[in-house]
Amino acid sequence: MIRSRIEALQTIMKEKHIDVWMVCTADYHQSEYVSDYFKMRVFLSGFTGSAGTLIVTQDHAGLWTDGRYFIQAEKQLENSGIELYRMGEEGVEDTLTFIQNRLPVGGTLGFDGRTVSSAYGKQLTAICESKQASMAIEEDIADGLWENRPALPLTKAFVLEEKWCGESCSSKLARVRKYMDEVGANYHVLTTLDDIAWLLNVRGRDINSCPVVVSYCVVGKNEVHWFVDSNKLVDIQEYVNTLGICVHGYDEVYDFVKTLDGHVLYDPNKVNLLLGKSIACGIEKENPTVLMKAIKNEVEVENLRKCHIKDGLAVTRFIYWLKKNIGKFEITEITASDYLDERRKEQENYLESGFGVIGAYNANAAMMHYSAQKGSEATLEPHGFYLIDSGGQYYEGTTDITRTVVLGPISDEWKMHYTQVLRGMMNLSRAKFLYGCRGMNLDILAREPLWNIGIDYKCGTGHGVGYLLSVHEAPNGFRWRIVPERNDSCVLEEGMVTTVEPGVYIEGSHGIRIENELVCRKGSKNEYGQFMEFETITMAPIDVDAIDFSLLSKEELAFLNAYHKTVYETLSPLLPKEEADWLYEVTCER
Amino acid sequence: MIRSRIEALQTIMKEKHIDVWMVCTADYHQSEYVSDYFKMRVFLSGFTGSAGTLIVTQDHAGLWTDGRYFIQAEKQLENSGIELYRMGEEGVEDTLTFIQNRLPVGGTLGFDGRTVSSAYGKQLTAICESKQASMAIEEDIADGLWENRPALPLTKAFVLEEKWCGESCSSKLARVRKYMDEVGANYHVLTTLDDIAWLLNVRGRDINSCPVVVSYCVVGKNEVHWFVDSNKLVDIQEYVNTLGICVHGYDEVYDFVKTLDGHVLYDPNKVNLLLGKSIACGIEKENPTVLMKAIKNEVEVENLRKCHIKDGLAVTRFIYWLKKNIGKFEITEITASDYLDERRKEQENYLESGFGVIGAYNANAAMMHYSAQKGSEATLEPHGFYLIDSGGQYYEGTTDITRTVVLGPISDEWKMHYTQVLRGMMNLSRAKFLYGCRGMNLDILAREPLWNIGIDYKCGTGHGVGYLLSVHEAPNGFRWRIVPERNDSCVLEEGMVTTVEPGVYIEGSHGIRIENELVCRKGSKNEYGQFMEFETITMAPIDVDAIDFSLLSKEELAFLNAYHKTVYETLSPLLPKEEADWLYEVTCER
Repeated sequence: MIRSRIEALQTIMKEKHIDVWMVCTADYHQSEYVSDYFKMRVFLSGFTGSAGTLIVTQDHAGLWTDGRYFIQAEKQLENSGIELYRMGEEGVEDTLTFIQNRLPVGGTLGFDGRTVSSAYGKQLTAICESKQASMAIEEDIADGLWENRPALPLTKAFVLEEKWCGESCSSKLARVRKYMDEVGANYHVLTTLDDIAWLLNVRGRDINSCPVVVSYCVVGKNEVHWFVDSNKLVDIQEYVNTLGICVHGYDEVYDFVKTLDGHVLYDPNKVNLLLGKSIACGIEKENPTVLMKAIKNEVEVENLRKCHIKDGLAVTRFIYWLKKNIGKFEITEITASDYLDERRKEQENYLESGFGVIGAYNANAAMMHYSAQKGSEATLEPHGFYLIDSGGQYYEGTTDITRTVVLGPISDEWKMHYTQVLRGMMNLSRAKFLYGCRGMNLDILAREPLWNIGIDYKCGTGHGVGYLLSVHEAPNGFRWRIVPERNDSCVLEEGMVTTVEPGVYIEGSHGIRIENELVCRKGSKNEYGQFMEFETITMAPIDVDAIDFSLLSKEELAFLNAYHKTVYETLSPLLPKEEADWLYEVTCER
Repeated sequence: MIRSRIEALQTIMKEKHIDVWMVCTADYHQSEYVSDYFKMRVFLSGFTGSAGTLIVTQDHAGLWTDGRYFIQAEKQLENSGIELYRMGEEGVEDTLTFIQNRLPVGGTLGFDGRTVSSAYGKQLTAICESKQASMAIEEDIADGLWENRPALPLTKAFVLEEKWCGESCSSKLARVRKYMDEVGANYHVLTTLDDIAWLLNVRGRDINSCPVVVSYCVVGKNEVHWFVDSNKLVDIQEYVNTLGICVHGYDEVYDFVKTLDGHVLYDPNKVNLLLGKSIACGIEKENPTVLMKAIKNEVEVENLRKCHIKDGLAVTRFIYWLKKNIGKFEITEITASDYLDERRKEQENYLESGFGVIGAYNANAAMMHYSAQKGSEATLEPHGFYLIDSGGQYYEGTTDITRTVVLGPISDEWKMHYTQVLRGMMNLSRAKFLYGCRGMNLDILAREPLWNIGIDYKCGTGHGVGYLLSVHEAPNGFRWRIVPERNDSCVLEEGMVTTVEPGVYIEGSHGIRIENELVCRKGSKNEYGQFMEFETITMAPIDVDAIDFSLLSKEELAFLNAYHKTVYETLSPLLPKEEADWLYEVTCER
């Protein structure tokens, strides 16, 4: 099926004299998660990971993805004829080098110009210029191949009240306009869906797991233009009117931007190439909303604490259920994660899951972003590990938590791996550091216990988390390399929320990950500067059955005991007695 | 005295219509250590630290220095009328901002254009342009104020044989020319004295503690031009002839560079402004020799190991002497460091000390780069700490070691401080990390034990070390912030030598620093990549009398025991029996 789709695409390419055709993951807004309409790369390649680029020449097809997805992509590309390019591995060409090498002189490179950022588009343009090649970017030539392509999303937008978000839209607009003044901008073109949602205090259900409204926004000095299907606004028309937002059709932004007179602030890494080309006089900078929304205000932080109690309750009840019932009746990767899903749905103010759950048994957990598929899912047995990485979208925020649950006997090696992962997670969580530190300064605290035994995980240690928005949010994160396009190396500011999730992934054997979320807080200030620290807001027990306590330092053990004490005291009053008693057993002082 | 010098300078400034006059620390080669001729900033301000900038206006004088020197500068500037600007502290203007703010529109900024790098000169030029101001950079207007100014240095150069340096000059030139080809350069203008010494395999004694030959060098594709007082070459004329090096007068480089036809590779951060202005068609890049000389070859590393045995022997004998005799007869900061100096001089192939020794008792040690002055030196008493930071220049390399020696009773708090410093030093030393890491990824391993108790040290954790060259060498180091002008954040490569020297500095009370040198080595390589690790080459005991062993983790204690075992086994056969027996006592397993 995939083979024939690629061949059909190659036929069209030949007809249209296109030598290289590229299919990116993004929608027109450079979203990480996209609605089904935009999943052309999945349709053409069969690879379902959240990051990947398909590049097809007239006689070859390749798919690029990163370390999280190597194992998954290998499986999904089997027999497709598509070659897997493992990004970041020694000797592997990156996409630009590949295009540079394969695009013939005087040839044509094509892609949908709305799915590529202006910045990346400029690099592609430079390659084409170096080859005297043309670019075909106005049309998605594969569109016709996709029978029954899903429609563009159309869901009803809703307002996120101030008791949830803590700051009015007017106040946020004032901050953005202050920044526009500072950089001398008359307009700001904003296309990233989470930034628009944050700025306007609106949410929608256009994209699974990320409650945004597919739209564009242009902020002027005195007006706001919102390019959005007006059918989405039926429930919030009054709010829109009160704020004086001018509503335009979704597609009208391309022509509108051409009419802007003055300096236009935009982020070339986010605004798509077609739209970017419409901006006459641009000021290229990161959207100021990126930093603003990453720094959660006190209302948001307080809501997040409540949110994590509810979410932790769901996870704790799930772990209890799983530990009690494993071996008693059949539980599969899917029925297990469904059970957790049910527990989350019971929670107040819960909207939906925050991302596709990863519920993976033993060897399946070695695939970092494994997703169990009906029919091929594993049955859990009373031995080994079940890794479950999940989260929820609540009015009180977005959660992301991973626990690796011991289902029965495990080897000493697995126990050692688990303990080193836990040590790394705790050592980063309990860091105290001077203001000015970035994730790259702290990352080794999580990684060192694994590096010491010659093991690494091929991804960052943690990422920023949105507030009722994307579970992956810039510009904070923990990663030892600076990867500019990831934009996760900012100075850690008070109020930023970041996950910490080291792991061990042994192909064909097992996977371990333990993930908490941390809020960055101010610590003491003295002659050396402002010290910073983390507050752990995730609230669920860590499976002590897999810990080799002889490996823990005094400080690590003290952290674990203190964390478990907090978990018990917070959750036990909300649990049935039997579950509270069990929670005491698994969290009491070691 | 200082007041009258500044006033005399201000008088000249008024005569010459110069509004702002800047005096930097550097010589014409941007050297860190400079020969006495160049110590104009010391002459005018009285501040003797190795880093600082004096800026004088017609009615004000200010001195900028960094955290290492705050306490020292405060003392030395007392009653001078010169204001201290603590670089890096909140709200303190940097030098450029100060000049921007104080230089009047249409005014004149002046400095000796040979003492400022081209890159910094460009920033100053931009400020002057923004103010329609002039620059006076051809003349050092303060020269006439300095009666009996020392002469330019004139010492005999010597050849560093291949058994010491491990690679011939021809081989090094071939590597430099290969790089010149890669970047399309016809010539390479090299002005940094350690790079010239490394490239030509020559050394001299022109600068105290840094055995270089004050000179300039221009590498062509087939020829080498060396601009150096020919009187320095009497002992190496044959070597120079054999290599076919064209010798020119020292000052002739300025005119010579103007005649170069083609692309000229030069480092604008190193080549001085006057010389940089003579380059018609420049390729601005770091000198390729910086990375080449930082990566010590196997001959150098093997020599360094021998070097550190000799150096460690001197330090060990010194500690023995100090611990045995403290309280028995008067020992001062200076007689103590003199004793160590004598022990170093006994070692084979020793040339001179590697930098001004820091021998500081208790509160004096809180000044990071304290230098005891005859008359004001402290007498050591049988309690507290004596910190001694010193090193030597040997044919087998350059050493840099700090030990803090317990002279008698110390408080629990001092013991705790000492132990946290030691833990940091050991935790960085025993790091295992993936290839690609930079010092900023690892720095927190040394700093965390101190950050955890709310203490910081206002400097990097460690610096690269030259081979019979400067004790501070780019581009490797340990520092959590990226400070571009320090150029110490490169990827750590096998063969690089870096110090690790965390510390505690409590003003008016005490200072603690423990410093070893580490050689970066390759560890295991597996599917995760190339792991790297450090070999500690410093070979001297760490004072166990100040350790609170209850604070050490199992891994830390194991590292200390293993290190001490190596120290004992290496040094004891070379010591008199009584000292070997003592060494056993202070290094045996804890």
